[in-house]
Amino acid sequence: MTYSVNKVQKKKMEEPPAKRACTDHQTAQLKAYKGTPLELKCVNTIRALAADMVQKANSGHPGAPMGCAPMAHLLWSSAASGGTGRNHSAKNPNWWNRDRFVLSNGHACALQYVMLHLSGYEDCSMDQLKAFRQVGSSTPGHPENFCTDGVEVCTGPLGQGISNAVGMAIAAKHLGATYNTTDFPNIINSRTYVICGDGCLQEGISGEACSLAGHLGLGDLIVLYDDNHITIDGDTDLAFTEDVKMRYESYGWQVLVVDDVANGLDDLRAAIDEGKKCTDKPTLIKIRTEIGFGSPSKQGSASSHGAPLGVPEIEATKEDFLVDEDVAAYFKEQADAGDQALAAWDADFAKYKEAHPDKANELERRFNEACINAVAKKMPELMGGSADLTGSNCCQIKGAGDFQKDTPEGSTLRFGVREHAMAAICNGMFAYGGLRPFCATFLQFAGYALGAMRRRPHHQPVEMLESLRSMPNMCVVRAADANEMAAAYQIAINNVHTPTVICCTRGTVAPLEHSSRDKAMKGAYAVIEEEGEGAPDLVMIATGSEVWRCVDAAKALQSNHSIRTRVVSMPCQELFLEQSEEYRRSVLPGNVPTMSVEASAEHGWHRFSHAQIGVARFGMSGPLEQLFQKYGFGAENIASKGKELVDFYKNLGGNVPDLNCRPTFVNFQA
Amino acid sequence: MTYSVNKVQKKKMEEPPAKRACTDHQTAQLKAYKGTPLELKCVNTIRALAADMVQKANSGHPGAPMGCAPMAHLLWSSAASGGTGRNHSAKNPNWWNRDRFVLSNGHACALQYVMLHLSGYEDCSMDQLKAFRQVGSSTPGHPENFCTDGVEVCTGPLGQGISNAVGMAIAAKHLGATYNTTDFPNIINSRTYVICGDGCLQEGISGEACSLAGHLGLGDLIVLYDDNHITIDGDTDLAFTEDVKMRYESYGWQVLVVDDVANGLDDLRAAIDEGKKCTDKPTLIKIRTEIGFGSPSKQGSASSHGAPLGVPEIEATKEDFLVDEDVAAYFKEQADAGDQALAAWDADFAKYKEAHPDKANELERRFNEACINAVAKKMPELMGGSADLTGSNCCQIKGAGDFQKDTPEGSTLRFGVREHAMAAICNGMFAYGGLRPFCATFLQFAGYALGAMRRRPHHQPVEMLESLRSMPNMCVVRAADANEMAAAYQIAINNVHTPTVICCTRGTVAPLEHSSRDKAMKGAYAVIEEEGEGAPDLVMIATGSEVWRCVDAAKALQSNHSIRTRVVSMPCQELFLEQSEEYRRSVLPGNVPTMSVEASAEHGWHRFSHAQIGVARFGMSGPLEQLFQKYGFGAENIASKGKELVDFYKNLGGNVPDLNCRPTFVNFQA
Repeated sequence: MTYSVNKVQKKKMEEPPAKRACTDHQTAQLKAYKGTPLELKCVNTIRALAADMVQKANSGHPGAPMGCAPMAHLLWSSAASGGTGRNHSAKNPNWWNRDRFVLSNGHACALQYVMLHLSGYEDCSMDQLKAFRQVGSSTPGHPENFCTDGVEVCTGPLGQGISNAVGMAIAAKHLGATYNTTDFPNIINSRTYVICGDGCLQEGISGEACSLAGHLGLGDLIVLYDDNHITIDGDTDLAFTEDVKMRYESYGWQVLVVDDVANGLDDLRAAIDEGKKCTDKPTLIKIRTEIGFGSPSKQGSASSHGAPLGVPEIEATKEDFLVDEDVAAYFKEQADAGDQALAAWDADFAKYKEAHPDKANELERRFNEACINAVAKKMPELMGGSADLTGSNCCQIKGAGDFQKDTPEGSTLRFGVREHAMAAICNGMFAYGGLRPFCATFLQFAGYALGAMRRRPHHQPVEMLESLRSMPNMCVVRAADANEMAAAYQIAINNVHTPTVICCTRGTVAPLEHSSRDKAMKGAYAVIEEEGEGAPDLVMIATGSEVWRCVDAAKALQSNHSIRTRVVSMPCQELFLEQSEEYRRSVLPGNVPTMSVEASAEHGWHRFSHAQIGVARFGMSGPLEQLFQKYGFGAENIASKGKELVDFYKNLGGNVPDLNCRPTFVNFQA
Repeated sequence: MTYSVNKVQKKKMEEPPAKRACTDHQTAQLKAYKGTPLELKCVNTIRALAADMVQKANSGHPGAPMGCAPMAHLLWSSAASGGTGRNHSAKNPNWWNRDRFVLSNGHACALQYVMLHLSGYEDCSMDQLKAFRQVGSSTPGHPENFCTDGVEVCTGPLGQGISNAVGMAIAAKHLGATYNTTDFPNIINSRTYVICGDGCLQEGISGEACSLAGHLGLGDLIVLYDDNHITIDGDTDLAFTEDVKMRYESYGWQVLVVDDVANGLDDLRAAIDEGKKCTDKPTLIKIRTEIGFGSPSKQGSASSHGAPLGVPEIEATKEDFLVDEDVAAYFKEQADAGDQALAAWDADFAKYKEAHPDKANELERRFNEACINAVAKKMPELMGGSADLTGSNCCQIKGAGDFQKDTPEGSTLRFGVREHAMAAICNGMFAYGGLRPFCATFLQFAGYALGAMRRRPHHQPVEMLESLRSMPNMCVVRAADANEMAAAYQIAINNVHTPTVICCTRGTVAPLEHSSRDKAMKGAYAVIEEEGEGAPDLVMIATGSEVWRCVDAAKALQSNHSIRTRVVSMPCQELFLEQSEEYRRSVLPGNVPTMSVEASAEHGWHRFSHAQIGVARFGMSGPLEQLFQKYGFGAENIASKGKELVDFYKNLGGNVPDLNCRPTFVNFQA
């Protein structure tokens, strides 16, 4: 099953006695291995570096990088130096004709950073590998093209990457058809390579995109499917027993199966070569791997998916962040070959420019011009279409022609009824360059496509609370502690008429001193009352894990500045708005400086507060507490902003606009 | 290809000379027809009624109902009277053990209403058929279970219905396994039937759901696939050339193909029977149909999809809303058989209740109890799971066991990495009854599932503008007229760094007198200035097609009440917020009564306005202008609310809370 060995096993082979004995099973595998020792060492170096990164960050996903290391090794063995892999160059990460690589299982990004490191990309220096998942590093927890040269698109939400890659393959095919000439047939002829996992193929978006890719005959798209039989919940047999090979054949793909890589990389290499030869169909290579390969006891287990292996496992595996000279030299050679390929292309392009100045200039404009100043100006780079609503969306470009398998020069795309993939494909086309993609559907179906429209990685759902709150009939509850969580369940159970969304933090939250299940069921209540008599000086509204931070801030404001502060926990806006006006005013006086604090977009909070501490951008990668501090959710900053708000109105003579002083129009409610 | 004939053709057969001659082709088809004349007449009556409804409403989708009429006919030929179809009863549309029917191509709902009419459902009386798509009717433009007895779920957004149906089949299998006994094996044994089209199968959500259905071996799920080769854009060959049969086989389904129904319904009937016999796999029956069958010149053409056929086409087809006595009698017989099946089940259940009182009581509680008063109370009806994040979501029910093919009594669902289908399946399970479904994932992936979470039909995207506006890096433009549309394009073209969403109304919008492309690019500007000097008495902010309505209202307020009103068009909130404070204050003074008007959820508008005219519920079906009036967007109501707002603050002594008087915290923007 496994073709390779870990470093300890390798040592045992070279210099017995080893620190750790191989199992008989592993020893038998070793003997059967037919690859070169260097190849083996390269693969194991990739594995080891990825595991080290996760271990040092103390978070991340070691399993997939270890299982997928052989694929990465082959894809980074440059075609230009006789390998089977991709052409690219750290000298110009934006080289138009580079072969694109998309890691669709973005949680495995340690693998991608390692490969970029070995290829000489500055953003993935050894220091950056060691800063994996830290605030401000160029090696965040899921790949972000905004952050790291060599990363083509943001991946992480499963299925997005492979769908983006379909867009890249469309872009390459279209641009090649438009700009290559008989004398210069290779100006744009790049391939798109993908590594993906089971999850990517389970998501509907990939089904949409891959059906279209088959229809369009995108021969330059090669997907390596890491068939490791493991998802987070356990074995894929729990929920995923379909025949993937048959499904992809039904889409019109070439499907190759590499059942056994235990004896070397030859089968996989041959499969990739086969994929390159097949020019009229995309290729899926189904590769049976073992997750966490090389880890003595977590190999093949879901436990290696999303958590560090642990030091004992790592120590058994290899030394820290080690890259032997021969391995470094091998990848340097690959990188040099890529640089040479780039140089050769540059020379070719210079000649092309002499022979076909109009085309070359236009291509340069397309890839380089950031802003086009007049809409009326001809924009041949505009390419796109609709999810089967071309007429209704009025988005047929006159005279553009359809982009189809045999007419790749056309720039009208027929996406079919596939909104989610449509948006992701456009993201991929944009990421490729040279095109300004558009897509169209009814506004309603933005709800099908939001996962792709947001174009950002995992775990940054800053807009999602307001998205859900703005949906009629949706009850959204964000609980601050265990009492409020009990209320959340009670609300959900009582609420038979509409869906309920319960949002929980992943962090640990201690019980709040004055939290209340009963009060929480009114949607909002004062969890800390201001001291003394009369209206408070300041009201802070918070939800979820921000409530206790406000409680801390309120205590500091009282003791340091005698600012009498009330903290309102608001687990459910919808329920609060259903309460009597009297109750609502008793909780939120409206004419007292009021500040909302929620680790989410501030949208929607202007209704309740004069000022907001929110998140006006997408998130970042880093340890929880560091991020909370950086984004302004530390108790100290909350207190400081609270004081600022109080002072703001004090300086204006205490005239606080009364947020409760507005008429409520009874809109149609039938 | 076509097995049937239209009424005119039938007349020709029975009483020549006909009003209209058949083509030679049609005559040849007629001769080959082997079904009974009554069967033929029933099918044609269904077709004709559906076409009439669309024609009378002057909107809707006649093509699919006409093509799918034979399927509906068979599914409504009661099993209890020897037919092959479903058990159900108008006497109790909520009979627990009824066979569910889901019209996944919900735009074809005229078909469903016709069948419910012929079966005696009150909500689909002849008057209601004639009120199709009218305000307040129980026959809206897409099926809504809240609105019409006999409709199980809201369908319309393609792929939702078939995914809901998977949930229903899960519910039936689980409840049967839990409550049936050896002596009473048929308390819960209902089947779930679906009619769907190409679009449903192109959507990724159906791929997710159907892969899971195959995995779970849901033998009681039978899907009739209307393979009419036509989508809105034209032939399915434009974008959908995959091998659907092979794909569904790869999911583990039984796939049957009915290639030719020209000679009668026998092949289709046999296929449905075959589907019923296969108990360990769901069945897909691929039926080659012709869209708009029976319409002389639009048959087989995309032009019959989403618009009335036109009076000449209809007149050639049949008389208005005609149901001959023999046809009515046939369906009465089917309905009676359904009623008898219900009565037999009722009797059976009474005996079951005597023999197994605990189980029967529990089942009654599950289906009938609307509100459960204590969370702690045992809730065996709680059933659900996670999209491969069971551990992270902490949603494993202890001791519940997995619901798998051979353990349907388990109540933990393993959805796989399939968020969109997960939400839709839960909708279906809830719609079935007897279960309280839940599902879990990271909040991030609500963005994958929103299409199902909203649980409403087409064309009611009331929350979508705010969803998009709350997304960082998203530029959302809603244009009011052609000038602003030019600005929208300019904004999108200039904006290379983030996506741009341009939202257009489907209605016709006349050019506004003072609209401006340049000003629109600032995000908001006064399209009507108040008369005279000094601050306005009232500011109205609107977007898109609501702007001209506000302009009309402003003119009325000025001339009838001398209220000096400014109308601000705000095509883009994001761009407006980027302008200087000076500009923003010049457009929106803040301390003047300000009202926003947008045909969308009012969420997000409290930032800019004291009062909002918005949409606090989902939409309705009806002619555009009637709906605008009903929801309060008529110029008269806008003017009246504007005056109300002005008076509100006048009565408070003119003290208007200044919406601009708030500090802006600079949140982290790195």
